[in-house]
Amino acid sequence: MQERGAPEPHDVVDLIATKRHAGELRSDEIAWVVAAFTRGVVAPEQMSALLMAIVIQGMGRREIRDLTAAMIASGERLSFAGLGRPAIDKHSTGGVGDKITLPLVPLLAALGVAVPQLSGRGLGHTGGTLDKLESIPGWRAALSTEEMYRVLRDVGGVICAAGAGLAPADRAMYALRDVTGTVAAVPLIASSIMSKKIAEGADGLVLDVKFGSGAFLPAVSEARELAETMVQLGADSGLRTVALLTDMDAPLGRAVGNANEVREAVAVLQGGGPADVVELTLALAREMLDLAGMHDVDPAPALADGRAHDAWRRLITAQGGDPDAPLPVARETELVRAEHDGIVQRVDARAVGVGAWRLGAGRARPGDPVDHAAGVEVLVHPGDAVRAGDPLFEVRCDDTGRLARGLESLATAVELGVVAPEPRPLVAGRVSGK
Amino acid sequence: MQERGAPEPHDVVDLIATKRHAGELRSDEIAWVVAAFTRGVVAPEQMSALLMAIVIQGMGRREIRDLTAAMIASGERLSFAGLGRPAIDKHSTGGVGDKITLPLVPLLAALGVAVPQLSGRGLGHTGGTLDKLESIPGWRAALSTEEMYRVLRDVGGVICAAGAGLAPADRAMYALRDVTGTVAAVPLIASSIMSKKIAEGADGLVLDVKFGSGAFLPAVSEARELAETMVQLGADSGLRTVALLTDMDAPLGRAVGNANEVREAVAVLQGGGPADVVELTLALAREMLDLAGMHDVDPAPALADGRAHDAWRRLITAQGGDPDAPLPVARETELVRAEHDGIVQRVDARAVGVGAWRLGAGRARPGDPVDHAAGVEVLVHPGDAVRAGDPLFEVRCDDTGRLARGLESLATAVELGVVAPEPRPLVAGRVSGK
Repeated sequence: MQERGAPEPHDVVDLIATKRHAGELRSDEIAWVVAAFTRGVVAPEQMSALLMAIVIQGMGRREIRDLTAAMIASGERLSFAGLGRPAIDKHSTGGVGDKITLPLVPLLAALGVAVPQLSGRGLGHTGGTLDKLESIPGWRAALSTEEMYRVLRDVGGVICAAGAGLAPADRAMYALRDVTGTVAAVPLIASSIMSKKIAEGADGLVLDVKFGSGAFLPAVSEARELAETMVQLGADSGLRTVALLTDMDAPLGRAVGNANEVREAVAVLQGGGPADVVELTLALAREMLDLAGMHDVDPAPALADGRAHDAWRRLITAQGGDPDAPLPVARETELVRAEHDGIVQRVDARAVGVGAWRLGAGRARPGDPVDHAAGVEVLVHPGDAVRAGDPLFEVRCDDTGRLARGLESLATAVELGVVAPEPRPLVAGRVSGK
Repeated sequence: MQERGAPEPHDVVDLIATKRHAGELRSDEIAWVVAAFTRGVVAPEQMSALLMAIVIQGMGRREIRDLTAAMIASGERLSFAGLGRPAIDKHSTGGVGDKITLPLVPLLAALGVAVPQLSGRGLGHTGGTLDKLESIPGWRAALSTEEMYRVLRDVGGVICAAGAGLAPADRAMYALRDVTGTVAAVPLIASSIMSKKIAEGADGLVLDVKFGSGAFLPAVSEARELAETMVQLGADSGLRTVALLTDMDAPLGRAVGNANEVREAVAVLQGGGPADVVELTLALAREMLDLAGMHDVDPAPALADGRAHDAWRRLITAQGGDPDAPLPVARETELVRAEHDGIVQRVDARAVGVGAWRLGAGRARPGDPVDHAAGVEVLVHPGDAVRAGDPLFEVRCDDTGRLARGLESLATAVELGVVAPEPRPLVAGRVSGK
């Protein structure tokens, strides 16, 4: 009942009540509430109540489309039309040890696809691409729009912080969701990701949608719903979008933590590295090449012959970094060992992610610093046979005060059994608009 | 994930997630979150997300009891043990034309029961007792604790604003609920009312729990659940509590609006007034006398013989008011007339309440002024036969700019039919601890 003295066309309390009772919000209501929140007319406590009602009661596809459109409308839009090359974007919903962007962007750049990668920072148990790259001395995440275009033109790829002008409503809503327990919900995740990606204005988008313990949505059914929702949102906006559903029950590769992951990414760019990281890099690269119309190009040789690594060096240099500078190394290392013999059934990605986070690799609050040297080296994978006393993890840490809590999380991360587990495919599904 | 650097024993995001997934909050979690909100450690946007999750997912009896206890613990407690008379409290869940407190308190005072009535102000379509009494020139709602005890001792009753020291957590949470669409939910209404009433420390409590269109919870099943929850909360805390379930589908009496309702209350205190107002006043008075151990006292004569009216004059005078001063009269009046012949089926309390509110009798935001003269005189009741052109409402207003919107709400408030409606009992049920 805000009627008197309020010139607004809607009453936010009525909108909240509609969603509270599982009703549908109209297009004009969604457009208004997002804009009014951005203007400060709808207060954070009102938006967080609405978000909780959305999380519990859900949203239909039309409502999600309207929410995405409202967040895009809150800011500016970019365009990569003048590059003379197809611009293909990539997004991962976030996982433990997920450093795929690091080899993927230079690989595609080497093959002639422009990849404008506007990334975020990590919060909680999943790392952020920018945090990882910042372990390289001199490397800068914050580029002006002009710098971003120049690096993209000169190198063929760029990885930088998303500017504040892109979907600012999403930025404000995400900050709220992060502290109010309203992150993990398909309508909100889908609209948050796709509003930024549509506003970026690339020609195509490949999504890596994670499921398993280390993912925000562990159930594969929810991950599939998220993938389908995002692919449809892309199609509705003329952004061709393909999603791979990939397993995040175990950490990707061996390295978890910022500098650790950069080292592993460089190994992949030099033709080595763990098989799963290579597999996923190539699977995503093939989808991006497809969207760029380069259906016959095999990306694998560019990893083996050094072209991708050359592009990496150019990319790091163009953003102020020294690709030859030594990366930070942790002062303390410690091994976590198997308590008895057995065959590794699971390596719980979430437990490893929380362990690395507690060791200092992640941040508890936005703006906190991260420890670039801290992290975990995962020494076993599902299916490996181990003997009592064999090392399972190497723990790396600068601050010994954090060691105990990190080890606590890792102590239960490996599950041992007597028979070999069923192998799980890394890429479990694919969702495309067709 | 607030772990690092946060010395708090709980993480509010975890608590919110528990309730989001319809889980139960433990006693220590509820105690902590209410205290942490009061201390400012839990932010308003976090509390409002939790409240929305509670509204949708519900709370068990044990959780509601813990929530009530936490709100009581946030403030001070009163005691009326030194009065030498039983102190019996009354609370109405709020309705349209509900001026019952005004005749009830002096009636009980005249009969030797002390009634400490710590009231609130109206917000939205239901009026507040303090707003009504403030239409009496000089009358003061804000008393110090010493003044409150003195008036109660001298007059036998007192009606004043609840001090800020009583359940301050409830006060802060209610302000949040009011703007976030989380008012109408049994766990939150019950704990809000009962935390204040238990903290007041009376010997007994009679609740008037409304149902019907003008009530916050229109469904009688929900009203009964609310009544049972509150009676149980009272019993758990040693506060003997009885609830009447009363019909709020039509406005109570004829007068809606502040000064209008004071005039009607005085008529009841002088032995007249509308039958329904008299009936409910006496029904509640009998319950209060019962709780005071005065089972054989009939309250009706004290209305007829002037004793209650004398107590009213003493009460108004003791709080600075002049019982003989003329009450404000609206500058504009207008009649709403029947469009055709018929028998009145319903007079929609909510439509009348919203109409009076739009005319200026209520406020849109806490702290707004109210227009004491504005309101509606309800000229027909269900069962009345009317002819086309007969007056249904007299509308009273000081600000003609408000007239059109008020009339709009009243235009559909009376439903006419061809057969007499089934009479509805005013008191539909009773809930007691036994």
